[in-house]
Amino acid sequence: MKENKQHVVISKATIDRLPLYYRTLKLSQEEGVAIISSEELGRRIGVTPEQIRKDLSAFGEFGKKGVGYYVSELIRNIGEILGLNRQWNIAIVGVGHLGWALANYANFASQGFQLQAIFDVDANKVGKYINDVEIFDCDRMPEIVAERDIQIGIITVPAEYAQSVANKLIKSGIKGIWNFTPVKIDVPERLHIVNEDLSVGLSSLSFHLSRSL
Amino acid sequence: MKENKQHVVISKATIDRLPLYYRTLKLSQEEGVAIISSEELGRRIGVTPEQIRKDLSAFGEFGKKGVGYYVSELIRNIGEILGLNRQWNIAIVGVGHLGWALANYANFASQGFQLQAIFDVDANKVGKYINDVEIFDCDRMPEIVAERDIQIGIITVPAEYAQSVANKLIKSGIKGIWNFTPVKIDVPERLHIVNEDLSVGLSSLSFHLSRSL
Repeated sequence: MKENKQHVVISKATIDRLPLYYRTLKLSQEEGVAIISSEELGRRIGVTPEQIRKDLSAFGEFGKKGVGYYVSELIRNIGEILGLNRQWNIAIVGVGHLGWALANYANFASQGFQLQAIFDVDANKVGKYINDVEIFDCDRMPEIVAERDIQIGIITVPAEYAQSVANKLIKSGIKGIWNFTPVKIDVPERLHIVNEDLSVGLSSLSFHLSRSL
Repeated sequence: MKENKQHVVISKATIDRLPLYYRTLKLSQEEGVAIISSEELGRRIGVTPEQIRKDLSAFGEFGKKGVGYYVSELIRNIGEILGLNRQWNIAIVGVGHLGWALANYANFASQGFQLQAIFDVDANKVGKYINDVEIFDCDRMPEIVAERDIQIGIITVPAEYAQSVANKLIKSGIKGIWNFTPVKIDVPERLHIVNEDLSVGLSSLSFHLSRSL
């Protein structure tokens, strides 16, 4: 069964929607919703019910025809698919305002992402703590990453340091990078990288506003 | 022609991908790429060429069979579709680390989003400037929003103030809201809201890592 799942080819578009499903289902659960139809789930996310049924069918049968999806079951299943049923150890590199904000972002821990270390080159920041997590000098990256089994590195340094920080993270044994800089970082094929562009949210707004204003 | 465009029904999934196309095309242009195939564009974004051709066909004919897309033409066209060919006036409410980081986010201005005002309730912050943009007391919202023709409000306040800040923004005449708090904000039907969840990027990484580790 597990083997089988690994061979399912899932489009990137579907993968990108799964966290939205997961989040919306969690919010629905908090509101006390136990069963949700693809119509209602679609309405909350802004996706057609057909799209939802198609996306979720790729992973097996989670719904009951004419009834809907069992919310807690679907949360557990999507969580498993997204790898959220285990703990991921993460590190932030770069303690500017964005790094600081991310270190304080409560949603991460609730989804199994444990901030294990923060790195910076500034001697005034090294040795301090953000929410009980220590800021280390970047030179200690190989040691700390290995010791704390950190798999994901978040890069929030100025753009000109993005590549060198990424190289250092990769050399230290990191498996995935979340890049907040506008720079395209070169990484080996085996490494996963997600490039964050905060403008995307604004573009989605401007798309709708330019049609309605 | 313009009328016609307004009647095209575009799926939310497509709209969500357009900013990624836009961003990737801009990066390609900076690298000196003048023509790009759907295969190459797909490889850079992580979407199938079929998906790209399908997405872009909804808006008309941008490519040339066997040649590819003209990058600058496609940038102009997608920019127009996304409403990025005009200036949008934005305001940030809440000067924590995240608000501060967003106020410094260089990508916004380059895509036509002009930060016109920042709001906070903290008397120690009011009257100060971030990158030449003044921090105003939240009480002055109606006046400043009208005066500076601000269309989009970005909410980066603590979760418990999210709804009241949104109400105040809407009353002041804002048309769209970008919500960084984890709270579901109730807004009138006519208003556009985008809920940002920074965990989505991490979930995408954990999905891939849990399959490859």
